[in-house]
Amino acid sequence: MQPSSVPVLASAAGPVLEFERRILDSMTDIEHWFRQNWQEHTPPFYGSVDLRNSGFKLAPVDMNLFPGGFNNLSEDALPCAVQAAQVAIERNCPDARKLLLIPERHTRNVFYLQNVARLVRLLATPGLEVRVGTLSPDVTKPSAISLPGGERLMVEPVRRHGDRVGLEDFDPCIVLLNNDLSAGIPPELRGLDPTQTLLPPLHAGWAVRRKSNYFRCYDEVAEQFAQLIGVDPWTINPLFARCGMIDFREKLGEECLALNVDRLLSEIRDRYRERDIQQKPFVIVKADAGTYGMGIMTVRDASEVVGLSRKQRNKMAVVKEGLEVSDVIIQEGVPTYETIDQAVAEPVVYMIDRYVVGGFYRVHRQRGIDENLNAPGMEFVPLAFSNPCNLPNVQAEPGSSAQNRFYCYGVMGRLALLAASIELERTAAALAPTSVGDAEGLSPALSHAMGQTPGVRVGAAS
Amino acid sequence: MQPSSVPVLASAAGPVLEFERRILDSMTDIEHWFRQNWQEHTPPFYGSVDLRNSGFKLAPVDMNLFPGGFNNLSEDALPCAVQAAQVAIERNCPDARKLLLIPERHTRNVFYLQNVARLVRLLATPGLEVRVGTLSPDVTKPSAISLPGGERLMVEPVRRHGDRVGLEDFDPCIVLLNNDLSAGIPPELRGLDPTQTLLPPLHAGWAVRRKSNYFRCYDEVAEQFAQLIGVDPWTINPLFARCGMIDFREKLGEECLALNVDRLLSEIRDRYRERDIQQKPFVIVKADAGTYGMGIMTVRDASEVVGLSRKQRNKMAVVKEGLEVSDVIIQEGVPTYETIDQAVAEPVVYMIDRYVVGGFYRVHRQRGIDENLNAPGMEFVPLAFSNPCNLPNVQAEPGSSAQNRFYCYGVMGRLALLAASIELERTAAALAPTSVGDAEGLSPALSHAMGQTPGVRVGAAS
Repeated sequence: MQPSSVPVLASAAGPVLEFERRILDSMTDIEHWFRQNWQEHTPPFYGSVDLRNSGFKLAPVDMNLFPGGFNNLSEDALPCAVQAAQVAIERNCPDARKLLLIPERHTRNVFYLQNVARLVRLLATPGLEVRVGTLSPDVTKPSAISLPGGERLMVEPVRRHGDRVGLEDFDPCIVLLNNDLSAGIPPELRGLDPTQTLLPPLHAGWAVRRKSNYFRCYDEVAEQFAQLIGVDPWTINPLFARCGMIDFREKLGEECLALNVDRLLSEIRDRYRERDIQQKPFVIVKADAGTYGMGIMTVRDASEVVGLSRKQRNKMAVVKEGLEVSDVIIQEGVPTYETIDQAVAEPVVYMIDRYVVGGFYRVHRQRGIDENLNAPGMEFVPLAFSNPCNLPNVQAEPGSSAQNRFYCYGVMGRLALLAASIELERTAAALAPTSVGDAEGLSPALSHAMGQTPGVRVGAAS
Repeated sequence: MQPSSVPVLASAAGPVLEFERRILDSMTDIEHWFRQNWQEHTPPFYGSVDLRNSGFKLAPVDMNLFPGGFNNLSEDALPCAVQAAQVAIERNCPDARKLLLIPERHTRNVFYLQNVARLVRLLATPGLEVRVGTLSPDVTKPSAISLPGGERLMVEPVRRHGDRVGLEDFDPCIVLLNNDLSAGIPPELRGLDPTQTLLPPLHAGWAVRRKSNYFRCYDEVAEQFAQLIGVDPWTINPLFARCGMIDFREKLGEECLALNVDRLLSEIRDRYRERDIQQKPFVIVKADAGTYGMGIMTVRDASEVVGLSRKQRNKMAVVKEGLEVSDVIIQEGVPTYETIDQAVAEPVVYMIDRYVVGGFYRVHRQRGIDENLNAPGMEFVPLAFSNPCNLPNVQAEPGSSAQNRFYCYGVMGRLALLAASIELERTAAALAPTSVGDAEGLSPALSHAMGQTPGVRVGAAS
């Protein structure tokens, strides 16, 4: 699927243009603010952010710290991605020569494997010896996988040697995870020799990470940024609430869920009313530790989460790799008003270290503007320019320049990344050395670090 | 002038292909070596390097620390250049908001002004407020200059306020020189408040800098690098010698010059003979503090430098801005065997911080393979790919891939840059606070720092 031109932003008028103008006018302040923040906070090795642009609101709705999909970036984006990878390696392990990339276990998905191959290329170019080691029990010896276009990817079984992880004949300085640890922290990665640099850290994986922790950090970042450029913080930040101790199979926690859905919908309704937005509010209910677009529901009324059918409950109960859902996040839905060839589209921004290195539109022909697009049937359209996110055209009229829209997306992507940096700092205590062995969930230390109390809280609304 | 395809390397066989293969095979070692060196040495803010490729030799012949010609880079190179500028600013002055760019005084050269405009854009994009201040006495008030393509450049007179330099209403955090200080260190830049970051430092300007100091540092870098990848150091390093106390107008120092030319030619002849190279050696005689391709002679026999005509002497006696030549460097000539549309071409590599951000070929239809191409009548052809210098194609056959040739050029460019970093460290003492006021030439401190003795020395040959 190739874009005929710039994707259409259906509501490219009024507030969103005002917002774009505000960002472009504040460019110097924004970049200065980011420079200061990156002095204080260390960006994750890489990340991707799902954005939604409704015209009246432009906000991140998910932050992935183990991005797949590098294969969907345009070829033109590669030189800058290589340059950014160089910075990331220098920052994390300047002395590195060998890097072990650990991908997801599901080694048969060709698209995902193309992502792995792309990552190998990105990381090898700044001069690392890169090999791919899998945790999959199915791979017992080095196996070459043929990819479309004649590319070949060698995948080898991960081996533990004492307190170091590697391959049979490969002792890496850097171990880069492209595996989000949904299935828990594998024994191979526990208690590693501290001279072996593991990136991102274990607590960035879904065995520990919670979306609600992330969005609490994003609240702070969004608040500061909104103040910096003088916009209503709500325009860049989806409200959210959280319910713990849910058991979909046993129908436990339905009341908590319904209560929070109701509160959040009513909160959104108020915001819409205050701003004269003629929309029907909706929320997204999803697993607090969920990934891959699994376990996600669009909800327009609290009654919809009471008395779920067995099918719905089963769908929500388990995310990837059999992980049971016990915590959910209820997030303000942001409709997407961007379309490509009449199909609903949402931008995804990719970053390495603190640099935007590209992005694409996730497009779904069978989904509506208020639905999750990360679902079977989605397609990907690379952003139209090589690496447009750092080259705004400040002379252009608001709304007329794709470069400017993409620059704004780059700014939002970096905001989301900054929140992840803060999240990782605060949650680092969750995997303090004493608890490395068994921290499979949210440890008390983590709850404490995040100032989290059991029960219910409406995020940005409070 | 647009390249029809990859420039032709007339002697693309034998040694140069072997050399290219060696570089590609050693990529991991090379990048690791650079990473280590950049931990120890700070790259200059920016730089450009003239390379010559004779097939049997690929070497830098000049390193410019105040590069003009950013306008000759392809548009596609901009995103990576912006990203590199971001790194350079973060390294040198992360808190900066305002940057003053001080260009050369000759404000009427349209090509040069386009370079300035391009630099303004490159530096403004990472979020700096950039203004251009000139030292030219002709500019007494802010003046807008129209450039081809409708661009406008505002140039304002530089003002000194106490111990800070700026514009009438502009107090910059960073002062970036694109003026090579051939005319000496202007009073406006002396004894600045240390919180105002001046880049590159004053001793990088030709008021202090000497090519022979630079090439002495390059000797060391080339030696180490050659050892790293297992090649003969001579293949990447031109021999050189130096004569001080020359006065072309008074015919003083002719004997020193003739003696050194003769020694160097004989040294090159030996190297050619040992390596079975069927070429007539030549040397380039140029001002040790010269720039802009001025004051340069191609010499094939020592007799040519004795009894120079008045015209020749006048040409050699003075470089830019009336600076009298008293020191010359005699450099092994490296013929260039690359051609574009049958015109002789030499690659020029541009870098910001430690990143290659692009390059072009300097092409001259009226010049031979053993002549300086930096002369009126030259043309510029951007390198054929957006930013190919960091994306080698290790699968390709030697010589068949432009990407690979450009990767090698990027490596050579970075080698030259590393030598400049070391040069600037060692020559920093030349402008120690006590001597800032009057250091217009090579101070005793500098001579000492460089381990330099008066008289004659054959550089890499010794």
